[in-house]
Amino acid sequence: MNTMISAGNPLTFTGNPLDRAENQRLDADWVAARLLDPKSRLLPYRNFEPFIRDGRLGWLDATDIGGIAGFPWVLLGIEGDSAKFAVDLGAKADIAGGEFQDARTVAAFLPLEESAIVAQGKSLLDWHARHGFCAKCGAPTRLAKAGAQRICTAESCKAEHFPRVDPVAIMLVTRTDARGDYCLMGRQPRFPPGMYSALAGFIEPGESLEEAVAREIWEEAGLRVRDVRYMKSQPWPYPSSLMIGCRAIADDDKLTPDMNELDDLQWFTRDQVKAVLSGDKSLNFFVPPRFAIAHHLLRDWAEDS
Amino acid sequence: MNTMISAGNPLTFTGNPLDRAENQRLDADWVAARLLDPKSRLLPYRNFEPFIRDGRLGWLDATDIGGIAGFPWVLLGIEGDSAKFAVDLGAKADIAGGEFQDARTVAAFLPLEESAIVAQGKSLLDWHARHGFCAKCGAPTRLAKAGAQRICTAESCKAEHFPRVDPVAIMLVTRTDARGDYCLMGRQPRFPPGMYSALAGFIEPGESLEEAVAREIWEEAGLRVRDVRYMKSQPWPYPSSLMIGCRAIADDDKLTPDMNELDDLQWFTRDQVKAVLSGDKSLNFFVPPRFAIAHHLLRDWAEDS
Repeated sequence: MNTMISAGNPLTFTGNPLDRAENQRLDADWVAARLLDPKSRLLPYRNFEPFIRDGRLGWLDATDIGGIAGFPWVLLGIEGDSAKFAVDLGAKADIAGGEFQDARTVAAFLPLEESAIVAQGKSLLDWHARHGFCAKCGAPTRLAKAGAQRICTAESCKAEHFPRVDPVAIMLVTRTDARGDYCLMGRQPRFPPGMYSALAGFIEPGESLEEAVAREIWEEAGLRVRDVRYMKSQPWPYPSSLMIGCRAIADDDKLTPDMNELDDLQWFTRDQVKAVLSGDKSLNFFVPPRFAIAHHLLRDWAEDS
Repeated sequence: MNTMISAGNPLTFTGNPLDRAENQRLDADWVAARLLDPKSRLLPYRNFEPFIRDGRLGWLDATDIGGIAGFPWVLLGIEGDSAKFAVDLGAKADIAGGEFQDARTVAAFLPLEESAIVAQGKSLLDWHARHGFCAKCGAPTRLAKAGAQRICTAESCKAEHFPRVDPVAIMLVTRTDARGDYCLMGRQPRFPPGMYSALAGFIEPGESLEEAVAREIWEEAGLRVRDVRYMKSQPWPYPSSLMIGCRAIADDDKLTPDMNELDDLQWFTRDQVKAVLSGDKSLNFFVPPRFAIAHHLLRDWAEDS
């Protein structure tokens, strides 16, 4: 099913055209038949980087790589009568006719729906690679439900494990005074020099989205906010986050940055943000590129006036 | 920090008054001092059920249970100069003066902010209990960062593991025709007889919230929807979900229920929902109680007119 239903500018890594086949994937016979079906296609990954050929996803037949026995694989879904799989060929893979490229790099040129498939495959293969053992008892696990699960192989345990999705709150804090409108952006030490972005943090057990937003802004900026509002969301395959984009309003302008997390934190005017988004290179800062939800939160706010 | 910032009727398990002390909990010396501090308080759990005394959380001094060495524990946060911990005393715990009670039961009578603490402690202790081993290499893990992390004890691995929060989309599908307004509710086989609720499902890797909503409704009801809209969210400690409540609009009324997941699926009129929420016992269905977000999604819609 094509679920491209987001309003406004589409977000990279959304728009996946595949039907995830939630019921069929429970049927081991159906899955086994798809693995041998000449209509099925495989997307190979090396170190979680997808195989690209002529600027598009490098789908292969199972026979092109001598089958996928022995390699970790997952069912991505079905499209018409063709099942699509992702397969992790390990660090030494080499396939003629194309190359393995980083997910961020390919997101810049792939059609939106192909970027979404890259994200889905990367998140799932990465999870399987890091979950070969049972967190409950330490025994080896095995892949089940076409990659939608792993099961502990110890007869005494048999615990079921499911791929993680880690919800992250990312929020644009805004403020208005007599002179104009402002938004809050900070710099994590790992950012390239000059880059500022919206604040963000993992949602913790036992808190709502709205509470997580308020907590993060309190911790990172020392600021109280009101009127937390959901804006849009984006899957983010590093390794498997769900970015939940919000806005929140601050009445106060005084910042107490958390210097453990940030190396700078500033209010930016709407005009500054408009200028940087329109490509003005004379400013002494820049913001994340179009493939990140932070860019869209900023653009939506800049165009709000 | 008190982050009770949700609009409208407050949701059970939200309103946690504790400051999670994200920075202090990284300081092992600070944490060790809090464990020995007579101002600190412990909330004991047995089988993930909190200790209740006189209808309130049964906070104890460390000395009341002979210290917490040997039991799994987590820092919940700080309130003023008192650190609060949750401790898992195992299946055989027995403490005079109160009793261990199920989180759903206590949510019905505890003040909102205490229900939130119950949820936080239950989700965290449950995660620690199921993650004593490293999913990456199978070696034992140890608790770190006051319970906000586990670390693999194998020198060759040292993988860091973080508590899970599993985002779940829960959605009220609505439809309008010349005769009135309808919402869609289904029955999972495990529900008590007569109970109907909003559809829900785990968000999968590589999809946005909006895509997850559309996929679930397509899979469970065979229905296409538009205009997915975020409404509110609730932490749900079974064991550690984040319920993300949405609405979506259907134009078609034809249902194709997924009988693997549901044993019934129906459209209900606004009048029926209003009646059942006002306590009308003459109807042949009922809906989840006030402590569940589904109740609030229904009530908000019923009162929308």
